[in-house]
Amino acid sequence: MSRRKSRCTVSASLSLTAAQRVLADQPFSQLLGARLTRFDEGRATLELDIRDDLRQQHGVLHGGVLSYAADNALTFAAGTVAGPRVVTAGFTIDYLQPAVGEHLRARAQVVRAGRTRVVCRCALVTVDASGQQTHCAAAQGTVSVLAAGTEAPIER
Amino acid sequence: MSRRKSRCTVSASLSLTAAQRVLADQPFSQLLGARLTRFDEGRATLELDIRDDLRQQHGVLHGGVLSYAADNALTFAAGTVAGPRVVTAGFTIDYLQPAVGEHLRARAQVVRAGRTRVVCRCALVTVDASGQQTHCAAAQGTVSVLAAGTEAPIER
Amino acid sequence: MSRRKSRCTVSASLSLTAAQRVLADQPFSQLLGARLTRFDEGRATLELDIRDDLRQQHGVLHGGVLSYAADNALTFAAGTVAGPRVVTAGFTIDYLQPAVGEHLRARAQVVRAGRTRVVCRCALVTVDASGQQTHCAAAQGTVSVLAAGTEAPIER
Amino acid sequence: MSRRKSRCTVSASLSLTAAQRVLADQPFSQLLGARLTRFDEGRATLELDIRDDLRQQHGVLHGGVLSYAADNALTFAAGTVAGPRVVTAGFTIDYLQPAVGEHLRARAQVVRAGRTRVVCRCALVTVDASGQQTHCAAAQGTVSVLAAGTEAPIER
Repeated sequence: MSRRKSRCTVSASLSLTAAQRVLADQPFSQLLGARLTRFDEGRATLELDIRDDLRQQHGVLHGGVLSYAADNALTFAAGTVAGPRVVTAGFTIDYLQPAVGEHLRARAQVVRAGRTRVVCRCALVTVDASGQQTHCAAAQGTVSVLAAGTEAPIER
Repeated sequence: MSRRKSRCTVSASLSLTAAQRVLADQPFSQLLGARLTRFDEGRATLELDIRDDLRQQHGVLHGGVLSYAADNALTFAAGTVAGPRVVTAGFTIDYLQPAVGEHLRARAQVVRAGRTRVVCRCALVTVDASGQQTHCAAAQGTVSVLAAGTEAPIER
Repeated sequence: MSRRKSRCTVSASLSLTAAQRVLADQPFSQLLGARLTRFDEGRATLELDIRDDLRQQHGVLHGGVLSYAADNALTFAAGTVAGPRVVTAGFTIDYLQPAVGEHLRARAQVVRAGRTRVVCRCALVTVDASGQQTHCAAAQGTVSVLAAGTEAPIER
Repeated sequence: MSRRKSRCTVSASLSLTAAQRVLADQPFSQLLGARLTRFDEGRATLELDIRDDLRQQHGVLHGGVLSYAADNALTFAAGTVAGPRVVTAGFTIDYLQPAVGEHLRARAQVVRAGRTRVVCRCALVTVDASGQQTHCAAAQGTVSVLAAGTEAPIER
C-alpha cells in the first residue's frame, strides 16, 4: 500500500511534457513520427501521420505500425498511474478494418492498476481528411511495474 | 474441399522469391530493413538488423519492432500453405527478455491451417555478434484466408 | 452486403428467449448454472452463482470459470448481430483481481462486426452480498461467422 | 538471484504427487474430473474425460472446458520451475478444430521463466477411442510468480 502511494506520487510528478520527453528518447518512435497528445488520469493518446513509408503492399497502414502504436500507447497509459518504471509485458491486438486516412490515433486507458502489473486496453482509430474516424484495431495488454531500485527493465 | 485444393495449388506456386517480392512491396518493411529468409512448408523466417533507429529509450530494440516482425512473419507462414490472399486478423505477443544484439530473427510456423483461417505461432530471437541467440518474445496469431475473387482484404 | 442484410434479419429474429434456449442446450453451461440475462444490440450478459464447487484451492472462483464465462459471453454478444451461426475463434483474458462474492457477471459487447468475424470484448465482475461490484477480469476475442448452409462449426 | 535460487529449491521439492494434491484441492478441477499426469522440467500435462456434461449444444467439448484446461495446465507448467506460489495472470487461446473424442489432453510447457513471471504455451489435443490425437486448441499465457511472504495471490 505505502509502496503504491509512493508510486502514485511519482506518477503525479510525471507530466505530459515529461512523458513526451520519454517518447522523444525512443529512436523508433521518432522514425515513425509518433506524438503523445494526452497523458493523464489513466489515459494516453499516441498519434502519427499515415506516411507512405508506413504502408503495406495494398496501400493501407501496415499492421506493424498499428501494433507499435498499441504497444506504446498501452505503456504510456500505465505510466500515468504507475510512474516511469513500466514496460509492456505483452498484448493482444485484433485488426478490425483497413487502416487508411490521414492520421492514426491510439487511445489507451487503464483497465485496472495492480501493484506489479497494470492491464490496459487501446482503441486504434484512423482519421481521414474530413475528420471522419474509423475504428481499425483493438488491443488489450499488460504492463509490468518494475520494482524500485531496478536499474533496467527486467523482462525485456 | 475443392476450394482448399485449389488454394494449395496457388500456395505451391508461391516461391520464396515471389514472397520476397511481396515483402519488397511493403514500404514499412523496407523502412525497417526486413528480409525474408525462409518461406516453405508452413514456415517463414523474417530477419532485420538491429539498427540504432529501431531502439527505445533504454537502447534495446523497441517492442514495436518485435510486434511488427511477429505480425509479418505470422502472415508469411500462413501464406506458405494458404497462398497470397492472406491477412493477419490478430495476434498476441509476450515479451521475454530485452532484445539486444546484431540481428532479430522471427521464425513463424503454422499450428493449424483451416479453410478460412490459419493459426500460427512465432518465436522471436536476437542474435549477437558471436552468433549467440536469445529468445526475446513469443507470439501466436490468426491469419484470415480471403475468399477467391475478393478484391482487397475484407477485415483490414 | 445482401448476405449481411440477410444475416441481420436472422439475428433480428433471435430473441433473448431463443438465445436462452441455446444456452439451455449447452450441458456444460447447465453444469455451471449459467444464466443469460441480456441479449440485444451487440450486448450479452452471462451470470452464474459462485458456488463452492466452482472455486480453486484458495477459495476464489477458478480462473477456468472466468474463462468459460468470457468465451460464452463473447459468442452470445456476437450472436446478437450475426445470428446463431457463430463460434468463438479465440480470445484473450487478463485476470485483474481475485474473484470472490455471490455472483459472477460477464458483460460482453461487440467492438466491430465484420462479414466473416466479429470482435468483442468482455468485462467480468463479481457481485457481493451487498451488491458491491469488483472488476475481476477483462477479455477480448474473435467470433467466426459461419457461412450459410454450413452444417456445423468449421473451425472447432 | 538468491531469491531465485531459493525458489528453485522450492520447486525442486514440488513433486508430481504434491502437485496432484494441489489439483485435488481445486473443487472446480474435481467437478470437471481433471487429472495431472505430468509435472516436471517445465512441463505439465492435464487430462480429463470428455463427459456428456462438458459439451456444448453441438455435442463437442465446450470451449470453456478447453480454456479451463489451458489456464490450469499453463499454471502447473510454470509451477515446475517457479514453485507453488504462482497464479495465471492471463492467456490467449485459439480454437483449431471441434473437440470430440474420449479424452482431452492439455500439454503445457515453459517458454521462458523470468524472475516475476513465467511465459508458457499449451497444446490441447483430443484423443479418440483408437488413440488418434487431434490438435483442437493452442494457448499462450503468462503466470505471475508471487513474492515470498505473500499470503495470497495478489492479482486475482
